[in-house]
Amino acid sequence: MSSPVSFPFKTSIILNRSINRHLYLQLCDQIVGFIKSGKLSPSTKLPGSRKLSEDLAIHRKTVVSAYDELIAQGWIESIAAKGTFVSQDLPIITPKQLHKSSIFKDVINIGGFKFKHRSHLKRKRIASGKDFLKVGDGAPDHRLAPIEDIARIYRNYTKKTHYKELLAYGDIYGNIELRQALVSYLNQTRGLKISVDNVLITRGSQMGIYLASQLLLNNQKTIITGNTNYMTADTTFIEAGGIIEQVSVDKYGINTNEIETLCTSKQISAVYVTSHHHHPTTVTLSAERRMHLLNLAYTYKFAIIEDDYDYDFHYSNAPILPLASNDNYGNVIYIGGFTKIIAPALRIGYFIASKDVIDEAAKLRRIIDRQGDTLLEQTVARMIINGDVQRHSNKVKKIYKTRRDLFCKLLQEKLGSYFIFKIPKGGMAVWVRLDTRYNWDTVMAEALKHQLDFNQEWKRYDNDNSGHNGIRMGFAALNEEEIITVIKKLELIMKTVSISKTTP
Amino acid sequence: MSSPVSFPFKTSIILNRSINRHLYLQLCDQIVGFIKSGKLSPSTKLPGSRKLSEDLAIHRKTVVSAYDELIAQGWIESIAAKGTFVSQDLPIITPKQLHKSSIFKDVINIGGFKFKHRSHLKRKRIASGKDFLKVGDGAPDHRLAPIEDIARIYRNYTKKTHYKELLAYGDIYGNIELRQALVSYLNQTRGLKISVDNVLITRGSQMGIYLASQLLLNNQKTIITGNTNYMTADTTFIEAGGIIEQVSVDKYGINTNEIETLCTSKQISAVYVTSHHHHPTTVTLSAERRMHLLNLAYTYKFAIIEDDYDYDFHYSNAPILPLASNDNYGNVIYIGGFTKIIAPALRIGYFIASKDVIDEAAKLRRIIDRQGDTLLEQTVARMIINGDVQRHSNKVKKIYKTRRDLFCKLLQEKLGSYFIFKIPKGGMAVWVRLDTRYNWDTVMAEALKHQLDFNQEWKRYDNDNSGHNGIRMGFAALNEEEIITVIKKLELIMKTVSISKTTP
Repeated sequence: MSSPVSFPFKTSIILNRSINRHLYLQLCDQIVGFIKSGKLSPSTKLPGSRKLSEDLAIHRKTVVSAYDELIAQGWIESIAAKGTFVSQDLPIITPKQLHKSSIFKDVINIGGFKFKHRSHLKRKRIASGKDFLKVGDGAPDHRLAPIEDIARIYRNYTKKTHYKELLAYGDIYGNIELRQALVSYLNQTRGLKISVDNVLITRGSQMGIYLASQLLLNNQKTIITGNTNYMTADTTFIEAGGIIEQVSVDKYGINTNEIETLCTSKQISAVYVTSHHHHPTTVTLSAERRMHLLNLAYTYKFAIIEDDYDYDFHYSNAPILPLASNDNYGNVIYIGGFTKIIAPALRIGYFIASKDVIDEAAKLRRIIDRQGDTLLEQTVARMIINGDVQRHSNKVKKIYKTRRDLFCKLLQEKLGSYFIFKIPKGGMAVWVRLDTRYNWDTVMAEALKHQLDFNQEWKRYDNDNSGHNGIRMGFAALNEEEIITVIKKLELIMKTVSISKTTP
Repeated sequence: MSSPVSFPFKTSIILNRSINRHLYLQLCDQIVGFIKSGKLSPSTKLPGSRKLSEDLAIHRKTVVSAYDELIAQGWIESIAAKGTFVSQDLPIITPKQLHKSSIFKDVINIGGFKFKHRSHLKRKRIASGKDFLKVGDGAPDHRLAPIEDIARIYRNYTKKTHYKELLAYGDIYGNIELRQALVSYLNQTRGLKISVDNVLITRGSQMGIYLASQLLLNNQKTIITGNTNYMTADTTFIEAGGIIEQVSVDKYGINTNEIETLCTSKQISAVYVTSHHHHPTTVTLSAERRMHLLNLAYTYKFAIIEDDYDYDFHYSNAPILPLASNDNYGNVIYIGGFTKIIAPALRIGYFIASKDVIDEAAKLRRIIDRQGDTLLEQTVARMIINGDVQRHSNKVKKIYKTRRDLFCKLLQEKLGSYFIFKIPKGGMAVWVRLDTRYNWDTVMAEALKHQLDFNQEWKRYDNDNSGHNGIRMGFAALNEEEIITVIKKLELIMKTVSISKTTP
């Protein structure tokens, strides 16, 4: 750790009491700016809160709040008996500049050998205790999973000698009956025009994103995502060696004009879209932008990774067909899965693309985990053919719609003064933005005291300070009683938070 | 394709009739040498067989045999009505020089976008028809899989409300009960001294090899393997960006003196060993070399990836404890799984290492496929705790021993004049070398005519011309009747092959 404070905080920081942004947030913004621009380098010691408050002629609490916020965001760290320092492991700063070489570092194991440390990947944080009520960021309710049906069909297959073959080494493309069943299922429900050669079975959508990234993004190739975007997708792209360029997201989805501008200035390899319900904000990509994006892909020769993670859950009207249904030239890699319909732990997904891309993805998949669980794949094939999957999906859709309606109604009635949100047309979560008078870290800390666990390891989608200030609150996994409890707890939490905010 | 033949074959090739190596193989060796050294570059046209046989004063058949062999090995290719050319896609030449940049090339998809083509990864070839008798390279007999037990235990869990939790998003490290069960199981059966923090559940050993490679081998780091080695491991290392250095393998296993020499000249990041039964040759790493290797790892600070794929199958005496049981400093990453004991399609394996390595591997695994099938993992945990796994393993071990004995006895009696092999002390395959008067491609082509399918997509383990001339013949998946049939068919095949060889 370097020690002397040489940076001229006093003259560099300019706070403006006349603009509508809290002083402590203005202070945060400017310190983050200095860190991003390299004026404050990792391990630089920051002035004490007393010193800085005197220099800037502000209340010491303002500096403390700013430091707390910056610590929570990972920009700075406090070391006992030493002081406060710019973090050695900085959070993702400007995603545009991120690529492998800058975020992998070698660390030394206890055996003395080096291995790669991935600062862009995070471990899931330790789950809270059993007494906690958990609100995820959009998981299905596993209590509704048709597991008895699955276990029964699965077991029936094990009793038939013919199906013992399914236990041997199998096709790296996946169980052929499932691939065939998916061809009909996806052509019927999504308007695709695929054949079995276009289908690779994966372990859920995540493996699809991983495979696509590894295929498309080596050596600092550029992928465009929305700002903000599904965090796990971003880290998967970075892991593959890609560079992320962000474009804005508004109520019509990802901004395709900004994509076009980027295409004219540099080579774009891929665009990642969650077209049906943008993750995290839940907006649907407009018809006009869909056609624009497809045309851009054809013109500028990039791939569209269409992650259709919750196509089956649309409540207000019929779902909009995916981009893949209008893909005349083979530009779309369409990714989906059954984890949201059936159960998160039974990881079966699909990766749909032109045959040449499928062949390469299958080769790669072979050395990752060889193949899928063929018996489970056969079981899911049977459930699609029998109509079980569709019946179950319709059943839970009704339940989730009721839950959405209740959750949103109560959120508006009881907490409308703290949170800003729109009722999502589908999916399993509401994109909830917090009034900028408050910050999520305080809310979350208070929530834990009330045994309410949002379990958001990436709880903020504005870590590049884009001002979204939102989190996803999953309603689908909560029954009505639990929804009522969550809202009651949130009322108590926000009351405490707002009192502490106004008390000097 | 370039056309004029400018390379001076006549003066460059020197054949020696007095040494104990077939002329056509001497010719092969030298042409491969020219290709490897760059004297013959891809797409160079080779002289016609008539021309070359005249230039070298040898029988034209010798040139034809040499060309056939080189085509089979992938060094050259024949193009109808044009002639024979050095291949554009050369096989793995000198593994030492292999790394990502040289083997990935971008190809253009029908949609116009570029994606990575991996020439080092192969697709599984199309399986032969149902009437074919299949001899793998060491798979277990899936017909013996305890699938009824699995399905029963699995279904019982699905009936208990408490276990419904297993269907939700779970721990990226794997099911905790399985991790705990593995701690006792591995400490008892392998002499390890691990705790739950050292255990990551994977999808079979292959995912373990993949994770270790991604952690250790970025940016052209060097890994040492045996020559020859398990092909899928080699391709996984190359995929991760590693460079492979090979050392020889003899009857004591991988040569650790050669490893030491390499360590003194360059930075080694990892050594890959299949210590229990070297893949493919089945030899066991000697006690002396084990200690030597562990000491080298400590001294030169490299990781040992110990792939213990068939520890449970040792027939002649007690299995030798893995290197991991003597790893005092945390240098060993120990990889194994249940696919060989239970069933290839139920992919559950383990990755054992120091906690810091486990944490990084888990983070990476999270973006590959999120997590394992928790319900299946719980089922396997129960089977370990109940002793079902050990009972089943003992049961099949007896069966496989009987099969090994029968297979080796008949192979010696009926085919001893064609094949050279040693009775393997364990495992599921015999390393069968072919008398150099014959070549495997001819044998395999004839085998297919006899509806015998060795299904070896990488059927040769001497593709860098190390002269092994061997393949693995799996006996474990064949019952006694099938073994007798295989041997009978092989007798017919070798008779045909040897007649065609001696007839002018």
